[in-house]
Amino acid sequence: MKKIEAIIRPDVFSDVRRALALEGIDGLSVTEIAGCGRQEGRTGLFRGNAYEMEFSAKLKLEMVVEENLVEPVIEAILEYAATGEVGDGKIFIFPVDEAIRIRTKERGAVAVY
Amino acid sequence: MKKIEAIIRPDVFSDVRRALALEGIDGLSVTEIAGCGRQEGRTGLFRGNAYEMEFSAKLKLEMVVEENLVEPVIEAILEYAATGEVGDGKIFIFPVDEAIRIRTKERGAVAVY
Amino acid sequence: MKKIEAIIRPDVFSDVRRALALEGIDGLSVTEIAGCGRQEGRTGLFRGNAYEMEFSAKLKLEMVVEENLVEPVIEAILEYAATGEVGDGKIFIFPVDEAIRIRTKERGAVAVY
Ligand SMILES: Nc1ncnc2c1ncn2[C@@H]1O[C@H](COP(=O)(O)OP(=O)(O)OP(=O)(O)O)[C@@H](O)[C@H]1O
Ligand SMILES: Nc1ncnc2c1ncn2[C@@H]1O[C@H](COP(=O)(O)OP(=O)(O)OP(=O)(O)O)[C@@H](O)[C@H]1O
Ligand SMILES: Nc1ncnc2c1ncn2[C@@H]1O[C@H](COP(=O)(O)OP(=O)(O)OP(=O)(O)O)[C@@H](O)[C@H]1O
Ligand SMILES: [Mg+2]
Ligand SMILES: [Mg+2]
Ligand SMILES: [Mg+2]
Repeated sequence: MKKIEAIIRPDVFSDVRRALALEGIDGLSVTEIAGCGRQEGRTGLFRGNAYEMEFSAKLKLEMVVEENLVEPVIEAILEYAATGEVGDGKIFIFPVDEAIRIRTKERGAVAVY
Repeated sequence: MKKIEAIIRPDVFSDVRRALALEGIDGLSVTEIAGCGRQEGRTGLFRGNAYEMEFSAKLKLEMVVEENLVEPVIEAILEYAATGEVGDGKIFIFPVDEAIRIRTKERGAVAVY
Repeated sequence: MKKIEAIIRPDVFSDVRRALALEGIDGLSVTEIAGCGRQEGRTGLFRGNAYEMEFSAKLKLEMVVEENLVEPVIEAILEYAATGEVGDGKIFIFPVDEAIRIRTKERGAVAVY
């Protein structure tokens, strides 16, 4: 199992969500975050004033999936979240040790659905 | 050390929190998330319309603990977060490389309390 | 690559953010969380009533960085987030398998900037 975190623009969310559902992703968590990135302007040594680094509203999607779904999920996100403009966001993949379905106490890959 | 993430129903939170405290868990972070899961209805190929996948308000609990606390914490969460209805949520366990207490700069297991 | 999560007091954020920019950190995500810790009082067996464990508003900073930036980032956070009072928060380091820039589909360390 892997955890996929995707930081995306809020306005691509419903397209991304539909694409994920078509890949078989039923379970995911969505958090509103404040993002800093190149979209907000180069900071630090380049301008000398980090306060110029402001925020953009982004959505963070988190989902734990079986390994064979990692690449299809990445492809689905890239297809619908990329606009070509700076600020499209990132996808990060993390290792997962265990998953447990609270209702049934099932563990492992069967628990992520 | 391991990170435990639990996605639970908001209304079981105070019972879960008390159970965690009794296991010696003092430190945790709580985030309001919007969850998608089977609770919101089967999507994609089953209905052909992913927009039917709506949100439920959930709480995400995050805590970094020593390894010997992982199973007691899982048991405590399962005892108080399971209602038997779809939508009870998930527990995920992740590897952790390091923990640091900002106040003292201490590192390792001593830093998580 | 590593993921750095820092839970800090909201009022040190702008100093921490400037320090991170000076270390070359352009991209990060900020989430408002409700924190429980020793700041809110010892719980469980010590008082017998976990409801006394209340919340403090904290900010969670998340950033994925190359390994050579982990120690400079930790140092920058420790310098500006430590007040010496209980409640200064924690830094956690996690392994990362992959990072992808959505705009360009680039993968690996080049994708985190
Ligand atoms: N290294 C990182 N770690 C964590 N979150 C990041 C990181 N880099 C960017 N982000 C998140 O992604 C959002 C988008 O970042 P940014 O504006 O740099 O866009 P981008 O898609 O990276 O642009 P570019 O394609 O030029 O890099 C940021 O607001 C932030 O929330
Ligand atoms: N694979 C997953 N990755 C991340 N978060 C998930 C995942 N599956 C479920 N979730 C989160 O858990 C919440 C509850 O999921 P769901 O409604 O499927 O309940 P459930 O307890 O999984 O039900 P069931 O017992 O039928 O699986 C979701 O709203 C979502 O926030
Ligand atoms: N083990 C942990 N796992 C996840 N988050 C934690 C953990 N411990 C603390 N936190 C987060 O850090 C915040 C600060 O914790 P706390 O009040 O214990 O301060 P502290 O800096 O740890 O104090 P002390 O220096 O006495 O430990 C908490 O509100 C919580 O959000
Ligand atoms: Mg960028
Ligand atoms: Mg489910
Ligand atoms: Mg503490």
